Amino acid sequence: MAQEPPVNDRPLCYCPYCGNPVEYQQRYGLDRAVCPACGWIHFQDPKVAVATLIFQDSQVLLTRRVNEPYRGCWTLPAGFVNAHEDPAEAAVRECLEETGLHVQITALEGVIGGREHAAGADILIAYRAVVISGVLQAGDDADQAGFFPLDHLPPLAFKTTSRLLGQG
Amino acid sequence: MAQEPPVNDRPLCYCPYCGNPVEYQQRYGLDRAVCPACGWIHFQDPKVAVATLIFQDSQVLLTRRVNEPYRGCWTLPAGFVNAHEDPAEAAVRECLEETGLHVQITALEGVIGGREHAAGADILIAYRAVVISGVLQAGDDADQAGFFPLDHLPPLAFKTTSRLLGQG
Repeated sequence: MAQEPPVNDRPLCYCPYCGNPVEYQQRYGLDRAVCPACGWIHFQDPKVAVATLIFQDSQVLLTRRVNEPYRGCWTLPAGFVNAHEDPAEAAVRECLEETGLHVQITALEGVIGGREHAAGADILIAYRAVVISGVLQAGDDADQAGFFPLDHLPPLAFKTTSRLLGQG
Repeated sequence: MAQEPPVNDRPLCYCPYCGNPVEYQQRYGLDRAVCPACGWIHFQDPKVAVATLIFQDSQVLLTRRVNEPYRGCWTLPAGFVNAHEDPAEAAVRECLEETGLHVQITALEGVIGGREHAAGADILIAYRAVVISGVLQAGDDADQAGFFPLDHLPPLAFKTTSRLLGQG
């Protein structure tokens, strides 16, 4: 029986609700942390990110990362989905935070599974969108934002970025 | 500043790694539980489920639920995605567990956001698939499995089930 992989490579030792030491027991197909006091079972959920493909005049909107990994490299407007957040709304929120542009989702582009790095997402949901309003201004975890033609792209950050832009 | 919603409607009180009481601090756009001892920040991830649409002779494959909510009602083969699991592989796994059928994913059908009930998923990723092999046999959290014509469907469990079958 496989053990649920540790979060952040550290074993989960205590119940976050009552503070008791947990035990590992087989539950729902995996060996999971269980609290013997309150019955809490640790279900580790996948991390989900959303990315947005926005084209204007055959150029795609990209942002430059201020954080590692791939600091200084460019990627689609993207970010993590919070618990209970609609993924399409998360994509709109991330785009506004990183580019200053209000966008409207027009289509589902794809879903890509697989974590590229330790702090990355397990699942990337990509949307197509169009700009509704706003002034292009990098923000949040991006220090530059701009439109680029597909045949003159800057250094890209992630394999998923390249794949979604047909470069991978 | 919104507070991250509690898991299972209970406030998270202790660091699951070192057992210290947590503090709530503004981090990454939400008021999140932070461990003052080890620096751990609680990022609650969305729960992700996958469902599979499988048609044979214009009939769709459904399973009957043994668990609440909607015990005894029918739904698409579906289940939660584990941490670090590819969603398409999770869909294949769930289908095998619940129907005995090995399937191959052929297309992404859609992504639906929004939790229908307290124990439900925040995000449902739906795929189209075809049967590769196996003998139809209900299992896991289904007690019956079968193919149904769209104009003679049994009682359906979830709004998302109805929506994906064009009934909602």
